[in-house]
Amino acid sequence: MRKPAKKKAAKSRPRNAFYAQSGGVTAVINASAAGVIDGARAHRRHIGKVYAGRDGIVGGLTEDLIDVSAESPATIRGLRYTPSGAFGSARFKLKGLEQNRAEYERLIEVFRAHDIGYFFYNGGNDSMDTALKVSQIGEALGYPITCVGVPKTVDNDLPLTDCCPGFGSVAKYIAVSTREAALDVASMARTSTKVFVLEVMGRHAGWIAAAGGLAGEKAGDPPQIILFPEIAFDETAFLAKVKQSVDANGYCVIVVSEGVKKPDGKFLAEAGGKDAFGHAQLGGVGPVIAQLVKDKLGYKYHWAVADYLQRAARHIASKTDVEQAYAVGRSAVDYAVKGMNAVMPAIIRKSSKPYRWKIEPVLLAQVANVEKKVPRDFITADGFGITAACRRYLAPLIAGEDYPPFKDGLPAYVRIKGKPVKRKLATDYKL
Amino acid sequence: MRKPAKKKAAKSRPRNAFYAQSGGVTAVINASAAGVIDGARAHRRHIGKVYAGRDGIVGGLTEDLIDVSAESPATIRGLRYTPSGAFGSARFKLKGLEQNRAEYERLIEVFRAHDIGYFFYNGGNDSMDTALKVSQIGEALGYPITCVGVPKTVDNDLPLTDCCPGFGSVAKYIAVSTREAALDVASMARTSTKVFVLEVMGRHAGWIAAAGGLAGEKAGDPPQIILFPEIAFDETAFLAKVKQSVDANGYCVIVVSEGVKKPDGKFLAEAGGKDAFGHAQLGGVGPVIAQLVKDKLGYKYHWAVADYLQRAARHIASKTDVEQAYAVGRSAVDYAVKGMNAVMPAIIRKSSKPYRWKIEPVLLAQVANVEKKVPRDFITADGFGITAACRRYLAPLIAGEDYPPFKDGLPAYVRIKGKPVKRKLATDYKL
Repeated sequence: MRKPAKKKAAKSRPRNAFYAQSGGVTAVINASAAGVIDGARAHRRHIGKVYAGRDGIVGGLTEDLIDVSAESPATIRGLRYTPSGAFGSARFKLKGLEQNRAEYERLIEVFRAHDIGYFFYNGGNDSMDTALKVSQIGEALGYPITCVGVPKTVDNDLPLTDCCPGFGSVAKYIAVSTREAALDVASMARTSTKVFVLEVMGRHAGWIAAAGGLAGEKAGDPPQIILFPEIAFDETAFLAKVKQSVDANGYCVIVVSEGVKKPDGKFLAEAGGKDAFGHAQLGGVGPVIAQLVKDKLGYKYHWAVADYLQRAARHIASKTDVEQAYAVGRSAVDYAVKGMNAVMPAIIRKSSKPYRWKIEPVLLAQVANVEKKVPRDFITADGFGITAACRRYLAPLIAGEDYPPFKDGLPAYVRIKGKPVKRKLATDYKL
Repeated sequence: MRKPAKKKAAKSRPRNAFYAQSGGVTAVINASAAGVIDGARAHRRHIGKVYAGRDGIVGGLTEDLIDVSAESPATIRGLRYTPSGAFGSARFKLKGLEQNRAEYERLIEVFRAHDIGYFFYNGGNDSMDTALKVSQIGEALGYPITCVGVPKTVDNDLPLTDCCPGFGSVAKYIAVSTREAALDVASMARTSTKVFVLEVMGRHAGWIAAAGGLAGEKAGDPPQIILFPEIAFDETAFLAKVKQSVDANGYCVIVVSEGVKKPDGKFLAEAGGKDAFGHAQLGGVGPVIAQLVKDKLGYKYHWAVADYLQRAARHIASKTDVEQAYAVGRSAVDYAVKGMNAVMPAIIRKSSKPYRWKIEPVLLAQVANVEKKVPRDFITADGFGITAACRRYLAPLIAGEDYPPFKDGLPAYVRIKGKPVKRKLATDYKL
């Protein structure tokens, strides 16, 4: 269902809004925050103050709220180009209603104390589920609250939306880095490194790994191999492909998702390995793959693990991604003040070339706990590359640059003041 | 000696030039190539064609030369913003004259066959030594050749020059990435990762690690800890500092040089192999440090190893670095046509704030095989940070952005045609 009916007209008395960041942060989640804050300011008849949870939902539960109105306009503008979670994010999943009803009741208690009528939850799969549950429990407890999810995840695995804000910028970072590192490897392969392995994020879905494929333009271009979590690792086929690439090009560039699995379903990263001195290789599927190549084919290798660098790299963010991140924040407020509850603004693709998109609401119930993986027809038959269809899908998401301002050679990112809202509840809450 | 006397007037008959890239490539070594090529074009009375060695000195030995005049002006301009070694680089160290005189004789034979009167060798320490030896053997063999070194190394360890082209851009990449990743970690530390480790290059000198320190602006800012190769690793002091930082800030960001050593002088992480120069091949000290923190303090950690990404990241190059890289290439030609032999253009700092610099020649004999490490007064007393003096030195080197052109969301780097020069020698050469 794409267009849920308005449940009721918005109340005329302004009520406050609670905004929280959730899960792994991104280069553009603060752009969504800016969208929510600007949206609230544009709807003063409906929304009073915006309170942000310090460290996400944890701030909600512990009544540790940040008064966003105390931040300067320059800081709010700066959120658009500042990576990470400016208000703090949390890896904290509310349990099911049956398991821990007290948690939800506490949240409603805090909301009630601060006259919070709107809850904007900026996160991924788990967070959409939580937002849905909060709207249900509010209803049940006689404290109706309008809950709108604001999509965010570098994993790009939410359904119904064309993509997830945060993904486009990681995708751009990985595509750019792969292109740059591949040039490096190619220029030295004759006497030095033959195989380069770049490990990227994506535990269950291979969208980020797929983005590495954008580094090349035609068949044979690096990366010659992409390893997806969606494709069981076939060691024999993999090694044959590495050898083929080194024979043909003099080198081989490999992009590997952290989530790549063996045929038995176990993560390859857990396979471990030992270096030349018999020391256990510590963590990371990148080094495991590199060591395998060395052991079986004897090639000199290098490996990189971008880790947080990839999702924090606001300096090379996708302009498209920044715009979409802001737009979903802004639309979330529009929906809320129209009285639409338990929805999420989704990005709907109207065309790929040129890329045209719009924002439409989808039901949280249809988003929560559904994981969108890379479809098989986006992956080449041999399992090691992306198809033209995948490229058509991905290309517009990394389009455009949106450089932050720089000062003394470094990005001039903003930090919030983070003025606490005066507590109203006598009770403390232990997490 | 800063101003060697001209050895002789340049000959009036134009002779060809041989340009070769050597060792690990950088984001700006091609800007030096552009400087050499533009310089040669500006001195047509002295310099005929520019031939580049395919894969560096290997192309010289095997008579595999690239005719640079066949490249379009757009490609030459594009070298200024294209990372890696466009003509190919090599990890190939010529042995000492006594050990392998034949190698030098072969090089002179190729030079003689192609009427090469100028040798521009674009590399680091080892390459400056080679350029010096080639000038000596040329003299001895009755084939005088003007040899000018063009400095390049991300390690920033050449003496007599304020800095080494290539370093400023890596420094900027590491400073920017550290700032971005630190924001990420800080925003999630309450419920997630407490300790983040970024491993950076720098086998013997900690300049790149030091650059991570630019990410912070005041005491206590991340990175809270930098581990230098110049300071023997003190496990007890390190762990105490990590704990102190987590207690005070909720998290700790660590930048660790690949070359950090134990008190017994052994590398903290030995990958096992050795490269073509006989140097131990390093990698993986990041995970070693992270595991140590986990084992001894129990904190949740993440680690990143930027590896080639850091030296290939032309998208975030330092404008200062690009300008200096071009300038040393250009000056090298100016010196050569003036008949200055066995010299290297060095960057001389005139002032730090504002940063003013000029190029002056220094003798290769004074540069070769001398390693400039981070001086003790650039490192804080506790060994874990950079001093104000270090900051004053480093800050101007990362100043300014110089973005490459983008197409479809990706940097539009150039590739050379690489037209081979017709061979003149009947003999093959086995490396």
